[in-house]
Parts: sequence; structure tokens; C-alpha cells
Amino acid sequence: MRPAFSAKDMEARRWLAQKFSDAGLEATIDGVGNVLGRSRRPGKALLVGSHSDTQPTGGWLDGALGVVYALEVARALADDRATQNLAVDAISFQDEESRFVGCLGSRSFVGTLSPEQEAGAMDRDGVMLGEALAAAGLAAAPRLRADPARYAGFLEAHIEQGPHLEDDAKRIGVVTTIVGLRNLKIVFRGQQNHAGTTMMARRRDAAAALFAFAAAVNREFPRAAAARSVWTMGRVQVLPNATSIVPGYADLDLQFRDADAAVLDRFESVAERLVAEANAGGGVKVELQRARAPIAPTRMDDALRGHLAAAAERHAPGHWVEMPSGAFHDAGIVSARLPAAMLFIPSIGGISHDFAEDSRRDDIVLGCRVLADAAASILGSFK
Amino acid sequence: MRPAFSAKDMEARRWLAQKFSDAGLEATIDGVGNVLGRSRRPGKALLVGSHSDTQPTGGWLDGALGVVYALEVARALADDRATQNLAVDAISFQDEESRFVGCLGSRSFVGTLSPEQEAGAMDRDGVMLGEALAAAGLAAAPRLRADPARYAGFLEAHIEQGPHLEDDAKRIGVVTTIVGLRNLKIVFRGQQNHAGTTMMARRRDAAAALFAFAAAVNREFPRAAAARSVWTMGRVQVLPNATSIVPGYADLDLQFRDADAAVLDRFESVAERLVAEANAGGGVKVELQRARAPIAPTRMDDALRGHLAAAAERHAPGHWVEMPSGAFHDAGIVSARLPAAMLFIPSIGGISHDFAEDSRRDDIVLGCRVLADAAASILGSFK
Repeated sequence: MRPAFSAKDMEARRWLAQKFSDAGLEATIDGVGNVLGRSRRPGKALLVGSHSDTQPTGGWLDGALGVVYALEVARALADDRATQNLAVDAISFQDEESRFVGCLGSRSFVGTLSPEQEAGAMDRDGVMLGEALAAAGLAAAPRLRADPARYAGFLEAHIEQGPHLEDDAKRIGVVTTIVGLRNLKIVFRGQQNHAGTTMMARRRDAAAALFAFAAAVNREFPRAAAARSVWTMGRVQVLPNATSIVPGYADLDLQFRDADAAVLDRFESVAERLVAEANAGGGVKVELQRARAPIAPTRMDDALRGHLAAAAERHAPGHWVEMPSGAFHDAGIVSARLPAAMLFIPSIGGISHDFAEDSRRDDIVLGCRVLADAAASILGSFK
Repeated sequence: MRPAFSAKDMEARRWLAQKFSDAGLEATIDGVGNVLGRSRRPGKALLVGSHSDTQPTGGWLDGALGVVYALEVARALADDRATQNLAVDAISFQDEESRFVGCLGSRSFVGTLSPEQEAGAMDRDGVMLGEALAAAGLAAAPRLRADPARYAGFLEAHIEQGPHLEDDAKRIGVVTTIVGLRNLKIVFRGQQNHAGTTMMARRRDAAAALFAFAAAVNREFPRAAAARSVWTMGRVQVLPNATSIVPGYADLDLQFRDADAAVLDRFESVAERLVAEANAGGGVKVELQRARAPIAPTRMDDALRGHLAAAAERHAPGHWVEMPSGAFHDAGIVSARLPAAMLFIPSIGGISHDFAEDSRRDDIVLGCRVLADAAASILGSFK
């Protein structure tokens, strides 16, 4: 496992830089840990890659697949006389998985990482980002910045992390939109008390208010949802969290995602109404906080998508599909500065962020072929 | 704060043993940390006391009040020529507040602490009871055992920890029954997954099942409840408890209390039915576990209660009341071996298990007078 800036992660990044060098690329590890293999070929370049950091208990393909594809695309194009003059830059971004700041590396690369965000970034164990950078020996290293004049665009390949491709017997997904995401934190403030002596009518039980709110969300959100909307209350805190104490405080995260901002607006309205209704009941005070910045739905670049679709049709006729991405990716960040597009291969059982994450060997090979073919056709269009 | 066996707790116990000695009692700290001050007077003795360990964030009166009353009752009776021949043993039991085993000290004293319960006892930080006993220097100390032939009974005074006395403008409560208590652990097993890519219809979200169950308990328990029934879901666990991960596992504790075992049976039936209904829905597998032994409602001894009531009427005519105890107490354990009774004084605002816990000074003084008077009349009846 390679959480960003861990010893294993940095070892993997040095290994990758060596592989980039071996492939004839000019390798750099920058000041936030991004590993870039820059092509020495002149003319427009295509940036290809993903991230090589992982969740603490993540699987072997999430991120790493797209990075190794990028290395292989650069090698394969260089090996073929028809494509050896094309410039492919391979990249592994840092901390996509949000140990400190989700998509730290791509944010830094495109210039949307704010100094405040960076200064306040701390992991779950209380380690500050600045400390991690220093420990990794990166504090003084320069930071790479994307040059839009150099790049034809960015391609990222990734495992789907969902079941749609497998369910529909498709082997390649061409991403239309990366879904938008909003995180609300709902805070419940009651009165801590003794669970034996405090009568029910007198209680201001923060956990009871949380249970009622969460159950209401799951009852009402389906009416506001579109076909692929998802919502999750995956993190809960109850204090003091003891069997015999009426909880005085509780909070939860309510996250929802959809490719359509109007659907996200509807979800947010329902949440606001449920909070207002809970407060009207008195007793526990409920507050809705917008803790993290929302992520707007991001459309992928039409021209790059067209190249991916054409390549998919050449290598897997009838076995590819256009689809939104339910997960967020570096391509969503990069698209603010460069044309960006994404390709998915199927995840077995839809499983990811788990050691059980896997993909079929022939799908892994096919995905790289489609990506290399699309890269060649994109760069060829500039010659 | 004095969690059982902490340095502060042991320091307080040594201090107390010295005070018992100073009052002419024969002081012992036994092998589980109980502090006994044994009277040197012949004849039937009355055991008086409570516990001096506290919750990690408990207040200053819970337990300690009854222990200091016991010391004062022993001193006051010894100081008065009319009562100086009466034998009062003062005691502070250990770990009433359940760092390792709730009412450890009184269980050990009356012989209902099983070797299995003791061997498996571990605190929240993974410390074993045996380690704590060794660290406190108690591993080799003999354990006291109650001698029913010696004792006329046990009296425990305590703060009410609830609002009834204050609400009803009463100054003394004479306890009729210590309510029974049952703890169920409800376990929800689903499938951990990615919160962006796993569609709602495919999810087996353990936390969503927990929210629905808990909300249903709070909707249905009122119909099964008696006037003073209480139920609490104060402890919740969600795994992995991350904003962007569909939880694969969750559990909660459901505790309920009433003076009537039939009401407890009704609550348990409702919980069983809700678990069955949740399982019928499929998806998440729900299991009801009876993790801790239930506590049956315990009636206080009629004769001892009569002495407390008569003393209360002498010192606070019309300002005392008979009432059940919603909280559990050492008297509930001791009553298995000795006649036992309890006296309450009012808690300001009903608050306890909190630094804000307090009682009025004149109520504190009155409670001790009533207890001393009742102790004298109980022991006098044996002369």
C-alpha cells in the first residue's frame, strides 16, 4: 500500500522515474511528488497518466493502471516507426486519494492549489502536509506547472470502480462527464445525560436526532434522484459514544453525486428542509455545514473523447460504451487547464478501494491498446 | 477524576483508609480495591457506603457522597453517648462505574463475581483487569467477603442523578426498586464499497440499515413503554467510517430500563421483530446479540426502607418521597446477599456523569442526617 508520501510511495515514485528514464523520457519528481517523464520529441505533446498513491487499504490497479499505461504508451509509440516522432509525456500525480488534499498533485500541476489549502492540510494522524513534504525530501524541489501551449491534452485511463461495464458486457468505457459531488456535514447538538435517570420526555438526545434525520434522507432522496444519483452517509460520530450515556453531540457526513448540477441542487434543498424540520421539533439543535468545497460536474473534451471512441470501436467493436464517471479523478482537475478525457476498463464485481480489486487480464491489455491508438491519432492530427 | 485503579483513585482510597482509621475503624483495602472501615463495636453491624471511583468525566458527588456520608455516620454515632455502642462499617466499593466490570467491588464482596467475568475483563484501552490489579499493588491482597451473620443490612446514599426530586420539590427519595436493565447489541453486516461508483440499488449499506433500525426503535418503543421506561442507543460504530466509502459494517447498543420485567420483555420483543423485519428486506444481515447479562429489577428491603422513611419524615416532613431508581447501584448487587436500601438527595437540573453535577448544600447536609438517624434506629432495633 502506498499512501501519498509514505516510504513505499516515495520508493515507487523513484522506481517510476527510473522507468521513465529507461524509456528515453526526461524524468523529474517535483516539489509535491508528481513524477513526470517528459518526451524529448518536438511539437505538441500529449500528457498521459494517473496517480500512483493509494488508499490505506486500496487495491493494485486504482491509479497505478493508468500510470503504467502511460509508460507503456510512451514506449510503444517510440518503438514504432510510424509513431516514434510523437511526443507523449507520462505522469503520476500525487495524493489523488486525499491523504492531505484530494488531487494535490494535479491541483498543483494546473495551478489551482491555494496556499491556504496547502498550509492547513493535515492527515488523519495530525501530520501536516509541510512535514510530509520535508520528510520525503521534497521541500526544496521545484514544482512543475502545466504549459497549455505544449499540450494537445490529457488522457487518463482508470479502472471503472463500478459494475456497469461488467453488467453490460462492455470492455471499454469512454467517459462523458465526471460527476459532481457535494459534501454536507450535519451537526446535532443536544444535552449529554444519564441513560437511566433522564426521562424520555426530558431528553435532548443528539444520536436519536441523527438517526431520525438519516432515515428521513434515505426515505426522501429517492424522489429527488436521477437514474445514476448516489448519496452516502459513510461517516458518523456520536459523543461520548457510551452505552449508558444519552449522547450530547453527534454529526455525520452526507455526500451526494450526480452528473447534473440541478440534481445536486435538489438534494441540497431536501437536506436543508429536513434540517429545518428537525430544528422546528425543538430539543436538539441541528446545523448544516458545507465543510468542503463542492465539485461541479465536469464534461470531458469532445475532440479527445472522439479519438478514444474511434480507437475503442477499432479494437472492441460494439463492446465499448459512453458513460459518466461516478468517482472523481485527476482528469477532472486537469480539465480546468487542458482538454482532458478518460477511458475505463471493467472492475471485476465493481469492487475497488479494497484488496479484492481486480480486472481481467485481457481487459487490461485491451485498455492499453485503445489508449495508445487514441494517443497516436490525437498527436497525428497535429502533424 | 478517579477511574477505578487509576493513580488518583488509589490515592483517594489510601486517603479514605486513613480517614477510617482516624475515626476508630479498622481499615483495609482489599484485593479488588474495596476500602472497608470495620467497627470495633460488638453486636450486629450496619454496612454503609457507596463507591469512590468515577466516570472518566464524572462529577464530584456520584458515589463519593455516599462514601463520605458513611464515614460521617460512623463518626457521628461514635460521638453521641446514645449511639456510641452501635457498630457501623463504612465501605467504598471499587469500579461501580464499569471501567472493567460494573460493580466489580460489590460483586466481589458478596461473591457473585465469576472467575470467567474477571479473567475476560478489559477496559476500553485494552488494559486487562489483572494488569490493573497488579499495577495498583493489589494482586496479592486478600479479598473481603460479606458475612451475613454480622450485618443488619446495607444502606447506600446517592445523588438521584435525575430530575424527579427537584421537579416535585422533594428533598429526600427513599428507593423502592432499582430498575432492571437489558443491553442488546445490534450488528449490521453489509458490503463495503465505493461511494461514487456503487449504484443505490446494488448497495448493501450497513449504516443505512442501522439508521432505519434506530429510527424504527424510537418510533415503536413508546407504544411498549411504561411511565418511567427509558431506552438509549448511546454507542454506535460504523466501519470504515469514511465520507466516501459505503459502510460494510455497523453496530449499536440498545439499552432499556424499567422497574417491571414485563415491560423489559415487551421492549425485547419489539427489538426482535424489527431485526426480523430488517432481515426480511434482504441486503444487510442484521443480528441481535445479548452481549451483557441482563439486570433484573431489584426491590429494596421493606424493613430498612421503613427506617429510612421514618427518618426522612422526622427531618423533612412532607418533603420526601418513595421512588424507583433509574440508575443501577451497588445496593442492587449487595441485596442478593444482605438486606439493602437506598436514599437519594436531589441533583440540580438532574445532571450527573458530567462536571456540572451538583446538589444544594442544605440537601447534602439533610441527606446525611436522615441516613445517620436511620442507621441508629436500625441498629437500635437489634439491641
